[in-house]
Amino acid sequence: MIVRLKDSARDTEIEAVLSRIGDPRRVVLPFGRFIIGMGRQDPGGAEVQHMPGVESVVAEMNGPVLAARDANRRGTVVPLGRTLVGGKDLAVIAGPCSVEDKHQLMTAARFVAAYGATALRGGAYKPRTSPYAFQGLRLGGLAILDEVKRATGLPVVTEAMEPEDVDLMRDTVDCIQVGARSMQNFPLLRAVGRAGKPVLLKRGPASSLSELMLAAEYVLVEGNSQVILCERGIRTFETATRNTLDLNAVPVLKSKTHLPVIVDPSHGTGRRDAVIPMARAAVAAGADGIIVEVHPDPDRALSDGDQSLTLDQFRQLMEETRLVAEAVGRRLSTPGAVYSSCAQRPAARTALGWGTT
Amino acid sequence: MIVRLKDSARDTEIEAVLSRIGDPRRVVLPFGRFIIGMGRQDPGGAEVQHMPGVESVVAEMNGPVLAARDANRRGTVVPLGRTLVGGKDLAVIAGPCSVEDKHQLMTAARFVAAYGATALRGGAYKPRTSPYAFQGLRLGGLAILDEVKRATGLPVVTEAMEPEDVDLMRDTVDCIQVGARSMQNFPLLRAVGRAGKPVLLKRGPASSLSELMLAAEYVLVEGNSQVILCERGIRTFETATRNTLDLNAVPVLKSKTHLPVIVDPSHGTGRRDAVIPMARAAVAAGADGIIVEVHPDPDRALSDGDQSLTLDQFRQLMEETRLVAEAVGRRLSTPGAVYSSCAQRPAARTALGWGTT
Amino acid sequence: MIVRLKDSARDTEIEAVLSRIGDPRRVVLPFGRFIIGMGRQDPGGAEVQHMPGVESVVAEMNGPVLAARDANRRGTVVPLGRTLVGGKDLAVIAGPCSVEDKHQLMTAARFVAAYGATALRGGAYKPRTSPYAFQGLRLGGLAILDEVKRATGLPVVTEAMEPEDVDLMRDTVDCIQVGARSMQNFPLLRAVGRAGKPVLLKRGPASSLSELMLAAEYVLVEGNSQVILCERGIRTFETATRNTLDLNAVPVLKSKTHLPVIVDPSHGTGRRDAVIPMARAAVAAGADGIIVEVHPDPDRALSDGDQSLTLDQFRQLMEETRLVAEAVGRRLSTPGAVYSSCAQRPAARTALGWGTT
Amino acid sequence: MIVRLKDSARDTEIEAVLSRIGDPRRVVLPFGRFIIGMGRQDPGGAEVQHMPGVESVVAEMNGPVLAARDANRRGTVVPLGRTLVGGKDLAVIAGPCSVEDKHQLMTAARFVAAYGATALRGGAYKPRTSPYAFQGLRLGGLAILDEVKRATGLPVVTEAMEPEDVDLMRDTVDCIQVGARSMQNFPLLRAVGRAGKPVLLKRGPASSLSELMLAAEYVLVEGNSQVILCERGIRTFETATRNTLDLNAVPVLKSKTHLPVIVDPSHGTGRRDAVIPMARAAVAAGADGIIVEVHPDPDRALSDGDQSLTLDQFRQLMEETRLVAEAVGRRLSTPGAVYSSCAQRPAARTALGWGTT
Repeated sequence: MIVRLKDSARDTEIEAVLSRIGDPRRVVLPFGRFIIGMGRQDPGGAEVQHMPGVESVVAEMNGPVLAARDANRRGTVVPLGRTLVGGKDLAVIAGPCSVEDKHQLMTAARFVAAYGATALRGGAYKPRTSPYAFQGLRLGGLAILDEVKRATGLPVVTEAMEPEDVDLMRDTVDCIQVGARSMQNFPLLRAVGRAGKPVLLKRGPASSLSELMLAAEYVLVEGNSQVILCERGIRTFETATRNTLDLNAVPVLKSKTHLPVIVDPSHGTGRRDAVIPMARAAVAAGADGIIVEVHPDPDRALSDGDQSLTLDQFRQLMEETRLVAEAVGRRLSTPGAVYSSCAQRPAARTALGWGTT
Repeated sequence: MIVRLKDSARDTEIEAVLSRIGDPRRVVLPFGRFIIGMGRQDPGGAEVQHMPGVESVVAEMNGPVLAARDANRRGTVVPLGRTLVGGKDLAVIAGPCSVEDKHQLMTAARFVAAYGATALRGGAYKPRTSPYAFQGLRLGGLAILDEVKRATGLPVVTEAMEPEDVDLMRDTVDCIQVGARSMQNFPLLRAVGRAGKPVLLKRGPASSLSELMLAAEYVLVEGNSQVILCERGIRTFETATRNTLDLNAVPVLKSKTHLPVIVDPSHGTGRRDAVIPMARAAVAAGADGIIVEVHPDPDRALSDGDQSLTLDQFRQLMEETRLVAEAVGRRLSTPGAVYSSCAQRPAARTALGWGTT
Repeated sequence: MIVRLKDSARDTEIEAVLSRIGDPRRVVLPFGRFIIGMGRQDPGGAEVQHMPGVESVVAEMNGPVLAARDANRRGTVVPLGRTLVGGKDLAVIAGPCSVEDKHQLMTAARFVAAYGATALRGGAYKPRTSPYAFQGLRLGGLAILDEVKRATGLPVVTEAMEPEDVDLMRDTVDCIQVGARSMQNFPLLRAVGRAGKPVLLKRGPASSLSELMLAAEYVLVEGNSQVILCERGIRTFETATRNTLDLNAVPVLKSKTHLPVIVDPSHGTGRRDAVIPMARAAVAAGADGIIVEVHPDPDRALSDGDQSLTLDQFRQLMEETRLVAEAVGRRLSTPGAVYSSCAQRPAARTALGWGTT
Repeated sequence: MIVRLKDSARDTEIEAVLSRIGDPRRVVLPFGRFIIGMGRQDPGGAEVQHMPGVESVVAEMNGPVLAARDANRRGTVVPLGRTLVGGKDLAVIAGPCSVEDKHQLMTAARFVAAYGATALRGGAYKPRTSPYAFQGLRLGGLAILDEVKRATGLPVVTEAMEPEDVDLMRDTVDCIQVGARSMQNFPLLRAVGRAGKPVLLKRGPASSLSELMLAAEYVLVEGNSQVILCERGIRTFETATRNTLDLNAVPVLKSKTHLPVIVDPSHGTGRRDAVIPMARAAVAAGADGIIVEVHPDPDRALSDGDQSLTLDQFRQLMEETRLVAEAVGRRLSTPGAVYSSCAQRPAARTALGWGTT
């Protein structure tokens, strides 16, 4: 049972509801306060529905509740640097698959910043199918990300592989990515939920959209609504592409959840020559942004070289995608925008005076 | 072994090549003349390569040859009414799933014509999963299509289910559809290849892009290069949508074949609310057109009502897609264009003075 | 609406039911007589349920009715040569993918007969992904099948690709195969339904079990209940095997339909080294038989060589599978059984004195 | 580069090899000692191949090396209680999906032990798609497992969801399961690799067999070769079953890796009525055992009730599967076998006097 409280609910009213519900958990989100009963002896919905201070009740939870469209009809926007992801401006998160060295990352970052990227991606911790593949520079990678972030002003998006990574990322990272293989790593989802900063949650290659939303629900239940969903391709029988980018996900998610949705055409296709067309398509479908791999020298990349754009191709992507963005009433940053700070993210929860339990 | 002849090849040179190759078959296409050896005793490629009149030789045929990009670097355009599909103008093929009665089809056709559709779709022969589902009006459906075509000037696209249907469609139908379930119905592919008119070949729900191109090759081998490929969604684990529209297919096919590629967002999603976003996305990805289901009263449709657009939604689709088309340098017909004739298709093969054997 | 008549229903009672139901179609199967209403104005089930001569009524047809388990609780057995497929004896249909020449087929047939095969497979008409691949000997292949059948006494199973093939097979072929690519070739299904002989219906690589049963329903509606279903692998992301043999299909189909179910481990795996283990597994799962590719010289096979067993491997398959068959209470023919005739199939429908309309 | 050392290699020879290889890592497994070079400046294979003490060299690592068949031609057996998994005796791991309370687990355990189960399964930490579903008793569940293990003598198999769970399981758990959703949770794989006890590694629902073996490689690289692979169904378009149990995996894995392979027909089908047939099929295909869900009262189970066997059904499963096991030359424990101890597992690595670095 999930009870949504009225904004006007008084403390005594809240206490009364808490005492009626088995094993209650309090969640505060920017769009509302909720009491979640996990106990098997929860009262019926009809009984709680009419208590003072209660706005609405969901008695059966077969799908997402906090992540469902109805929970926030206005739509959630997630601040990432100066962009409000989910608003009119599109997010463009660009950079190399892996952080390889300072020169590589700085070159890529300066270029993508100059052509309108709104955030920098780059992996320090790399989940790799083989234990013999390059596993990332780890702490060294985080240090490079920090340095490049200071130099360029670009907010940084990078992947955490386990809960303890999240702590290490507290100071450097602006948005923690939960990778496709980790979409149902529930301890990790809870950890990024408690971290209180933006989360980029990628769809698993065999995960339905319903499961993606329930994975987001794990984050929201911890009191963090700053979740950006990311379609990055699913696994099908087709081998012409590395994955099958499922752009259907964009309109379906838009109708079912209030969270912003971006698209990763690099992993979604695995082919450099398909990235730009699919970036255009993603924006035309209504995505709130894209995340793309860009490398100064893709042929020497330590990972994902086949799908990384060259710097020139990134410029082309921005030019072409900008026109499509305008055709659908959205906006892409213009080249040369300067990022002076990425610390202006509103601290959504502190003003509400309530922690999560 | 496939031998491509030079345009300047003389009859005696051709005879010499024919006599060297086992079990030869001659194919004439608008973009070249070919001799295909099916025999197991074909000579080596090096041997034939240097014979007079020979332009190039493909010795091993693991993939498509006539349908491959290299066979026609300029790209094939298929005339459908006044639109050259594969050129700058986008094809918009719209209409109901099934022809149900004259009033239904006429209403839909007049509306979609008024808002810029370039051809009318409507099934007379319906492949249905259950023998108890509506199977189409068959000959009665063809008659209605004929009448509506005369009244509106719209060229007609409809599906053939077996070779004998192809003959029945000779006079009425401008473009014969080979449906997704029939993509590997090889007798049917050969039959539409011999029919000498445009073919709309839909990708099977479990077919790779490579297999789609080889299915097209069956048509081309019969001397008919007027093939429009259609991505219409593949079968995956995801159940939020009826199929998973694989827009990756657009850039991949564009790089591998010279045939035009259109997209069917109606079957590709199965959800009315996703059709318009995916139509926009298809055009942004580089598709040469779309095919969509439109019904005057979708809730009463005898088939596919859930995915059919209302007339108003079709108007919206055209308005939104037109802007995206312009953003990618393409053109959508403007409302009110009048179709006076659909018989202006150039008779591609007759000028060449060669039949297929 | 489908009405099942009582065995005791009188002509006048039947006429009364027929006159109540819109656009009726009569179907007689060995396990019952049915009246199928295809009209949209069918009366409600409650109304017809109580008419004299009516045993039961199915008002809504969302799934198979004639093929559903309930239609024939005793289970259907299909005679193929001397084996009643679906009974205690297991069918073993063995032979080469394609009929290549008389020597090849005779060698294979004599060997598999000697080691207990109950029928011979061999393709005369071959559906091939590429138009340049070997397409079968066609009529020449049927002639060879006929000759080998006479010499060995083995009943013959071969594939029809289009309705007109069915007529050509009338005299030679004991069981017509509808291949995986043709599972939803509805004109072909109707044609084999009218042919009145056993049908081997293979599951399409992207077809659900529900769709397979509905494809069988197309055959049954024509009055032919002699349908053997065949699981042959579905298309998934896994590339270690050509297809993913879905043995779950065996218990699921057994619970949902009365038709016999066999398994094709050759296409289901595409790997010679996996055929024997999966044949054992199929029998352990409860299959009513197997169909396997056996070639005297697989490395020189014109099709499917990678998955064809050698003659020795077929012998091993029979030895190993026989033990498993006994462990699950089934029986595999012993080596050396002689087939003197395959014409003993009971003419199921003629005794009932009713045709299909 | 991976270098396999001869058993006779001397310390000085090993030192010489170590000093030639970039960033070396030493791995000792019961079947051999290996030096793995992770550095990009590894010397060519030809150069190292001829150094003293070197048995063989793998220069390129595109697939598994330590887990590959060639690494241990004799096959690996993993001790689990008194069963050597991978030997002639089949493992039967049975019990409820989740540990719910002491009575439930004790009832199930006593029953399955009496009918021949060789180990007890039961989840204390439950990965659940929804945060609102029962998440397991966690430490309380481990305590119950410990108590039931002492009472019944059954070794215990349970799932770890994150690295820190592994430590908590040190004393109680005999075999740590890495669940399907965690197959590519690389930190967890490394942690169970270091734990030095048997690991049950389940295939991910969208993971290829190649990826499964590479996941096992992560464990082996840590010096732990006690890995049991488990096929538990993959995700496909078919919805009649919860997953598609891919029994092809059994022969394919058997040919490509030396690790034992078991099958989970409960998750692989999701249907109680399909579990027994698929258990029989798994054994017939050559699996080294099965893992099945058994619950004293499936209809009241807190998770996976639909696919749990009743106690009576488990008895039937054992009876039927025993016959199939014998037919393929394997052995299933007989009812009434008593487990007095599960601590007889040989401490494989200590005798070798080398740790992993």
